[in-house]
Amino acid sequence: MTARKILFLVLDGISDRPCPELEGKTPLQSAKKPNLDTFAREGICGIMDTIAPGIRPGSDTAHLALLGYDPNRFYTGRGPLECEGTGIKMHPGMIGFRCNFATLLHDGNISDRRAGRIHDTIALSEAIQRQIDLSKFGVEFTFRSGAGHRAALALKGKGLGHCVSSNDPKKEGVPPLAINAVKQTKKDKKTAAVCNEFIKQANAILSEHPLNKERQRKRLPQANTVLLRGAGEMGVFEPFSQKYGINGSVISAASLIAGIGTALGLKRVHVDGITGSQDSNLFGKILAAQNELRSQDFVLVNIKGADESGHDGLAKQKTAFIEKIDAAIAPLRSLQECIIVICADHSTPCTIKDHSADPVPVIIWGDGVRTDDVVRFDEISCPKGGLNRIPGSSLVPTALDLINRAHKYGA
Amino acid sequence: MTARKILFLVLDGISDRPCPELEGKTPLQSAKKPNLDTFAREGICGIMDTIAPGIRPGSDTAHLALLGYDPNRFYTGRGPLECEGTGIKMHPGMIGFRCNFATLLHDGNISDRRAGRIHDTIALSEAIQRQIDLSKFGVEFTFRSGAGHRAALALKGKGLGHCVSSNDPKKEGVPPLAINAVKQTKKDKKTAAVCNEFIKQANAILSEHPLNKERQRKRLPQANTVLLRGAGEMGVFEPFSQKYGINGSVISAASLIAGIGTALGLKRVHVDGITGSQDSNLFGKILAAQNELRSQDFVLVNIKGADESGHDGLAKQKTAFIEKIDAAIAPLRSLQECIIVICADHSTPCTIKDHSADPVPVIIWGDGVRTDDVVRFDEISCPKGGLNRIPGSSLVPTALDLINRAHKYGA
Repeated sequence: MTARKILFLVLDGISDRPCPELEGKTPLQSAKKPNLDTFAREGICGIMDTIAPGIRPGSDTAHLALLGYDPNRFYTGRGPLECEGTGIKMHPGMIGFRCNFATLLHDGNISDRRAGRIHDTIALSEAIQRQIDLSKFGVEFTFRSGAGHRAALALKGKGLGHCVSSNDPKKEGVPPLAINAVKQTKKDKKTAAVCNEFIKQANAILSEHPLNKERQRKRLPQANTVLLRGAGEMGVFEPFSQKYGINGSVISAASLIAGIGTALGLKRVHVDGITGSQDSNLFGKILAAQNELRSQDFVLVNIKGADESGHDGLAKQKTAFIEKIDAAIAPLRSLQECIIVICADHSTPCTIKDHSADPVPVIIWGDGVRTDDVVRFDEISCPKGGLNRIPGSSLVPTALDLINRAHKYGA
Repeated sequence: MTARKILFLVLDGISDRPCPELEGKTPLQSAKKPNLDTFAREGICGIMDTIAPGIRPGSDTAHLALLGYDPNRFYTGRGPLECEGTGIKMHPGMIGFRCNFATLLHDGNISDRRAGRIHDTIALSEAIQRQIDLSKFGVEFTFRSGAGHRAALALKGKGLGHCVSSNDPKKEGVPPLAINAVKQTKKDKKTAAVCNEFIKQANAILSEHPLNKERQRKRLPQANTVLLRGAGEMGVFEPFSQKYGINGSVISAASLIAGIGTALGLKRVHVDGITGSQDSNLFGKILAAQNELRSQDFVLVNIKGADESGHDGLAKQKTAFIEKIDAAIAPLRSLQECIIVICADHSTPCTIKDHSADPVPVIIWGDGVRTDDVVRFDEISCPKGGLNRIPGSSLVPTALDLINRAHKYGA
């Protein structure tokens, strides 16, 4: 029998380096994970350079590569993809920023770059959307709240460049910066002027907003300014369905990943209780994936928590979260007619608290797969598998071939 | 001692996926093949993506890649290479088609796309060559019979394009199609008009031909029309001898493969009794290869039968044919001063009855090769070998290096 569906299970940052806390093992080696190991035993394993050997991927460039979109060609900064992630429909040429609500003191300094990790900023975003006026520049904008203190800003108009600096000083106790044109082109100067005006108007609106008045009374940091970063111009993405001839869905708490999905035309599936963190509703995600596979040819599920532990340097927490993932994916073992690809987007070693270029382990499981003798899903076992070492760009074509939907090149 | 010669033994479509008929083994795993396994044990093994991971190759694009000619640059359709395969010398800019003799009924429908798998069509081709006149288009043509019901047509003239459709309806009981310009350019329209005129004249000639009168008497399907497909413009191929500094020969029953060889300037060697099928004269092929290696630096032998079994979904037949190949190649074990490369051009899994992108196993055997601990030539054993996973384009350079004929790059 030949499988008909593809599930990509991307375990964000799950791979690691040997950790002193784990007696020189990696979290994947230390965790008890009978389900992941069964997939390894029943499938074919290998290691993967998401972008290329020695290239340390971001989650955005990594996911583009995993979906077969060469980041060297398609990645134009995080901003436009974060905009997509908050639900703004970005069109080619629009300029996007990822934003933080932040706290600006009377002395002009930023006291909190995340405004006390404020939640529920929708009223603030709506006030900004309603009251700010950029018509003197001939520019339209969309501003939307994201998760927590996050938001996104999209600009649309003629003659806008994307090579502008951020107003984020990257530390607290100093004033925000002016936004400048990096390359000093006319287009970039216009965008910088628009951004500085946007911030000026936003500050006035936010400082008068009832929600901030209330936070002031409660002695909470006010969300009375906005930091803009990750400027980028939205590119042209060939739709996934056109590129590969199959439709698909994306399930991710991380708005960046969801935004990459929607930018490629994947259907975004919302699941209650997913957080991109240790407390995420993993069972809900897996259930949603199974539901999607009834109607869609391809589903990408991103599970973020292990990456978070890696960034925090918590090897034991990472190990525990891997065990939680393992329990949640048990139902996938009985999936029929489906190729399951399990991998990370990049390694996030606890010892460096950031992404690294170490290749990630990968399993391809399902009908027609040539199994090997690897029996464990970890960084040390998988290199001995039948896939050997592959680039991330080969993943979708390989899976497509296994469901017999790849085009034959030649005769 | 350093080897001086290179033999490429391309076992067309020999690799596979796990087959239910073989209790989850592949035909290569199931077959008793002491000689292939000895080459594996004495040589270095690996897996190979003929074109790239996840790309399903045709035999034509695969062989171009194996010979180091990037199909993305050099492949311009099957037609011109099939023309070469029938012995037509194609020059850059000529338009080539692969053709079938077919049976056209009085009601205008095609009743048999292969004219009862007619053989011996040379008299028909000669009549077409002698009588058809395309001079009103300023076009010269060459029409030649290939194996069985096959033939090839080459057009030469100014202002001819190659983006034209086929007249093959791909099924029986319906009329042949008109040939149209796909892109509606002036050049393509001219080619389409030439083709339609060619077919009109061919139908008239063939329907009156004594050979068809005789077939009519014998109640055999007449070869009274011609189906044209695989249109392509002959490209410019750097000769193999110029690219690599060595001369070479090709031995293949498949005209497509032989045509690729001659297009690159390889010497085509005819061997009696080779059929590209289960009944081929394999011993004759191997003997011819040994003879060629006396005068040539490089010999490519293509053995087709396993691919045919894969297309027919016959795992046990494929296994038996692998054993036949194994017996035939025994004499190669005593070859002196020769690097032998054994591989497939692509996988042809019996479960899908078509080519797949699954990487193919490869052995490199001979003096100077670093051996590994792989002892079996199959899809599961070879990934553990010392070559790891390589692209098809690296095969000739690697072999050239082993005969010490690769150029040093730098100092």
